[in-house]
Amino acid sequence: MKFTCEKNTLINNINIVSKAVSSRTTLPILECILLNADPDGLKMTGNDLEMGIETSYIEAQIIEEGTIAIEAKLFSEIVKRLPDDGWVLIEVVENNMVVIKCGKAEFKILGLSGDEFPVIPYVEKNNEYSISGQLLRDMIRQTLFSVSVDESKPVLTGELFEIDDNSLRLVAVDGFRVSFRSAELEGDNANISVVVPGKTLNEISKILPADEESKISLYFTDKHMLIQMDECTIVSRLLDGEFLKYKQILETDSSTVVKIAREEFLKSLERASLISKETKKNPVKLEIERDIVKITSNTEMGTSYDELAVETEGEGLSIAFNPRYLIDALKVIDDDDAYMHFTTALSPCIIKGEEGCGYKYLILPLRVAR
Amino acid sequence: MKFTCEKNTLINNINIVSKAVSSRTTLPILECILLNADPDGLKMTGNDLEMGIETSYIEAQIIEEGTIAIEAKLFSEIVKRLPDDGWVLIEVVENNMVVIKCGKAEFKILGLSGDEFPVIPYVEKNNEYSISGQLLRDMIRQTLFSVSVDESKPVLTGELFEIDDNSLRLVAVDGFRVSFRSAELEGDNANISVVVPGKTLNEISKILPADEESKISLYFTDKHMLIQMDECTIVSRLLDGEFLKYKQILETDSSTVVKIAREEFLKSLERASLISKETKKNPVKLEIERDIVKITSNTEMGTSYDELAVETEGEGLSIAFNPRYLIDALKVIDDDDAYMHFTTALSPCIIKGEEGCGYKYLILPLRVAR
Repeated sequence: MKFTCEKNTLINNINIVSKAVSSRTTLPILECILLNADPDGLKMTGNDLEMGIETSYIEAQIIEEGTIAIEAKLFSEIVKRLPDDGWVLIEVVENNMVVIKCGKAEFKILGLSGDEFPVIPYVEKNNEYSISGQLLRDMIRQTLFSVSVDESKPVLTGELFEIDDNSLRLVAVDGFRVSFRSAELEGDNANISVVVPGKTLNEISKILPADEESKISLYFTDKHMLIQMDECTIVSRLLDGEFLKYKQILETDSSTVVKIAREEFLKSLERASLISKETKKNPVKLEIERDIVKITSNTEMGTSYDELAVETEGEGLSIAFNPRYLIDALKVIDDDDAYMHFTTALSPCIIKGEEGCGYKYLILPLRVAR
Repeated sequence: MKFTCEKNTLINNINIVSKAVSSRTTLPILECILLNADPDGLKMTGNDLEMGIETSYIEAQIIEEGTIAIEAKLFSEIVKRLPDDGWVLIEVVENNMVVIKCGKAEFKILGLSGDEFPVIPYVEKNNEYSISGQLLRDMIRQTLFSVSVDESKPVLTGELFEIDDNSLRLVAVDGFRVSFRSAELEGDNANISVVVPGKTLNEISKILPADEESKISLYFTDKHMLIQMDECTIVSRLLDGEFLKYKQILETDSSTVVKIAREEFLKSLERASLISKETKKNPVKLEIERDIVKITSNTEMGTSYDELAVETEGEGLSIAFNPRYLIDALKVIDDDDAYMHFTTALSPCIIKGEEGCGYKYLILPLRVAR
């Protein structure tokens, strides 16, 4: 294998496929990036067996075809620090020895045979679901933080991707809250319901294009999801198991509604959290009166008090929460105001943004001594 | 005690005295900031017994005199996150309970009696040494990184401050290199020679004013150094013991001199370090030929080669170094070119910037197999 490629092009593509490279593994090949030079151009692949990413053809001058697997971290560091002379020559000489040359600088490092690199599972492109990259990125950002970290129920360490009646819904659940985000899809789409690992969604959201215009395509099989972007193709395995039946619990039949300035509320909760040790989840109490919310906390470190002017509907209420869980939701709502729906001091609270934002968040209250 | 003070004024002064607050200690009082409200204004103090920092009078409206010690981290976090309403009211009520109020937000946290707070040692202001804050900051930056971390020889964990013939010299030494920086002082100054702990210099350099104009004053006793700035007074203890006799070893009587583009050389060494594991200090070899330096390294991870055009004087030479130690010096030299002075492959190398920059760095070579 022998080719030349522009330094920045190499760096951009290494950054993409590195998202699917294992950092801790006993299999050295999984710590590698596969380089594949064929007559049509250069491709790079990363694959940690949970998720595989293959770049589209990269602009390169192929001098000799071939494949090689190179330790991703070392390869990335070397290429990033090459002189800014623009063109990099990469050549495999005898015994998987890789020569990297740029200007006067030259490295020789040992690679692994490209034949050892695990093949990314084949996903047949039957039903295409088309969505804006920016929108999918937002949907993941608004929900991913409440994916369960409890490995004893693996299916909840992923997010539900449900397509029903041409609407895509992402749902993430841990033992304390539910995040839900929906968005309309264009065209006529078959229904599906799969669970995608949270870990791979985290990496995918870093690669998804950030502009509203760029469309990406999703394809699903029983076992895998494929995401097709301009720059690369991502294949993630799916999680088995029955996801939470979320629909009924997200219905809002509330007796008290509070419209609250999101950012002010967020800052007030962050302040109240200060007198709670990191490790202890001290509750923060909300006392909802007519057009006012009093926010108090009381721990062994001290007490805090704050009040915010709000718009209330319905009866007053006194209820307590883990402030961290309220903060998480308030951070991902994009609107100026948040709407909190309450029933009783012991029933879940549902938080929404403005009508039509597609976002809902359910949080369980804490039982506290009066 | 009761006063009001502008929020940002509080934050700025908390940031200054926090540099002298212990983060890990068994004495809770050392984790505190002392607030002292007297008829002339407000002062804050931090003191970890190695170093004490006392602010100058802070603009505040004193309503009632008094003192209180407040846990620095919590106090800092609370004040930073108070609403931006500008004025903060701080009041001590019964039993060292501190009330912090700003807008509608109110905190109550328990403080410690100000009487328990350790007094900063008194330093008589006999001989004043005046220097620009920016210059002292630069001198510390150029030398501090080579202070020894070996606690078995405590005096070398500090920096020599030597004033001789109206020239201030800072010297730091570990087992592998010596950093030296000198600068002329104005006026007629008494000679001194003391050793200041590296840890306190690190904190002090963060507070030193960054503009060329601002003058600071230094005072010394047998046991302490006092630094007087506009914003605060710092007192650091000194280290006992005999410092390295550095003068003779820094004399340059070299047979080979290389003038090298500092930044290019730095980048080349950083590249060569990539094929060396973090934990292992693999040597990098410099082959000095007529107007060229070849930079090579050879480890179990691979090999690297680079060459730079330089200006050489004297004979060729082949010599090896820990690249990290070369990189450290090249990073703090402010000139475009560095000058390396060699004698033999087994003798120390001395690196300087341009004539008159006042900076010298001595580094021991590594013995490598040919």
